[in-house]
Amino acid sequence: MMKPAAVVLLSGGMDSCVTTAIAGQRHSLALLHLNYGQRTEARELQAFNAIADYVRAERRLVISMDHLSKIGGSSLTDHSMPVTEANLGREGIPTSYVPFRNANMLSVAVSWAEVIQASAIFVGAVEEDSSGYPDCRRDFFDAFGKVVRIGTKPSTNIEIVTPVIEMSKAEIVLSGTSLGAPFHLTWSCYQREDVACGMCDSCALRLRGFELAGIQDPLPYAHRPQYTH
Amino acid sequence: MMKPAAVVLLSGGMDSCVTTAIAGQRHSLALLHLNYGQRTEARELQAFNAIADYVRAERRLVISMDHLSKIGGSSLTDHSMPVTEANLGREGIPTSYVPFRNANMLSVAVSWAEVIQASAIFVGAVEEDSSGYPDCRRDFFDAFGKVVRIGTKPSTNIEIVTPVIEMSKAEIVLSGTSLGAPFHLTWSCYQREDVACGMCDSCALRLRGFELAGIQDPLPYAHRPQYTH
Repeated sequence: MMKPAAVVLLSGGMDSCVTTAIAGQRHSLALLHLNYGQRTEARELQAFNAIADYVRAERRLVISMDHLSKIGGSSLTDHSMPVTEANLGREGIPTSYVPFRNANMLSVAVSWAEVIQASAIFVGAVEEDSSGYPDCRRDFFDAFGKVVRIGTKPSTNIEIVTPVIEMSKAEIVLSGTSLGAPFHLTWSCYQREDVACGMCDSCALRLRGFELAGIQDPLPYAHRPQYTH
Repeated sequence: MMKPAAVVLLSGGMDSCVTTAIAGQRHSLALLHLNYGQRTEARELQAFNAIADYVRAERRLVISMDHLSKIGGSSLTDHSMPVTEANLGREGIPTSYVPFRNANMLSVAVSWAEVIQASAIFVGAVEEDSSGYPDCRRDFFDAFGKVVRIGTKPSTNIEIVTPVIEMSKAEIVLSGTSLGAPFHLTWSCYQREDVACGMCDSCALRLRGFELAGIQDPLPYAHRPQYTH
């Protein structure tokens, strides 16, 4: 029997890679990659395609949302703003915040899901390490799910699934390892495209997660900080 | 004193033109136009710019959302599907429905509104003549408003305002006339760009609205049907 289709938002990073592996257990995969003018866009797209090939995705779609960089207001897309170096203890909204980014991405995913009659959208959001991003929280996805129920055709029934939202990075590493997720094909660094910088928030969170899981990160790094736990 | 800014979704049609006039009474105007691969895109953009000049908008932004046509599933963007001729009494979802279009548009509007610190987003949705579109109903906008409250920065406070949502087309004509809205600069036809066709749903609703209001529509039409009320 054919598995029901699910749209998976796959950036190419480790969280969305593990989310893809989880979705693939029960669904035929429709992988969606969104470019929004981020610095490492080309490297992320390469990771997306490598992962999509590896998992033999049924469908893939790459969408350009350059308007998010046109609107600006974030260090990820406004190249005149510096990327903040890792400071995992700090409070508040990081400068890498793209205003309302996840709503923009989810809206595209829902449009596609409605057309291909997918029954679910999988998103690899993680609440713990994204507490500064208001649109990464479970409350946000719950509220968006209600908008989807109201704003699509009566015959459409799309569930928003966030399977790693309550996991720590170490748990994500362990989950992905048990499912055979291709971590060697992922890309997480916000700053560089050749080897990961090891310095930005995203690298720091990833490296700490692998370290806590007791697993070696297969990616090469320019710099590997040591964390005290 | 400087009026607070409001983002207005201005397609160039009569509903959004009247909505712009209403927003302009209390707000400095930030007009947003979204191209999504619709047939009459160039003509609508021309109407947008003419209206923006007329109302002396403080800010304007034109965003291309070609991904909606890439995703397809609608006669407005998929040029291989015919535009349905007017049948105002029919039930169900019209073929001009772009899946989850309003959520995509609102998400862009919220991103911009958050960056420019606008206090409101005005949308010219009309429930009555759009009953087939699930994302034109008040329930949808209410649910989306909750997503905006949860998914933006704590310091951000953006209200979604739908001032014409409960009006009939005739009431919109009367409201716009009393506010001096430039109906002569608007464009509503889904089908043609030189003169309005008078045959598509959008033309039919517009013409009936002007007729019921007892006001002459200033646009030229290729065909003007007579309605029995």
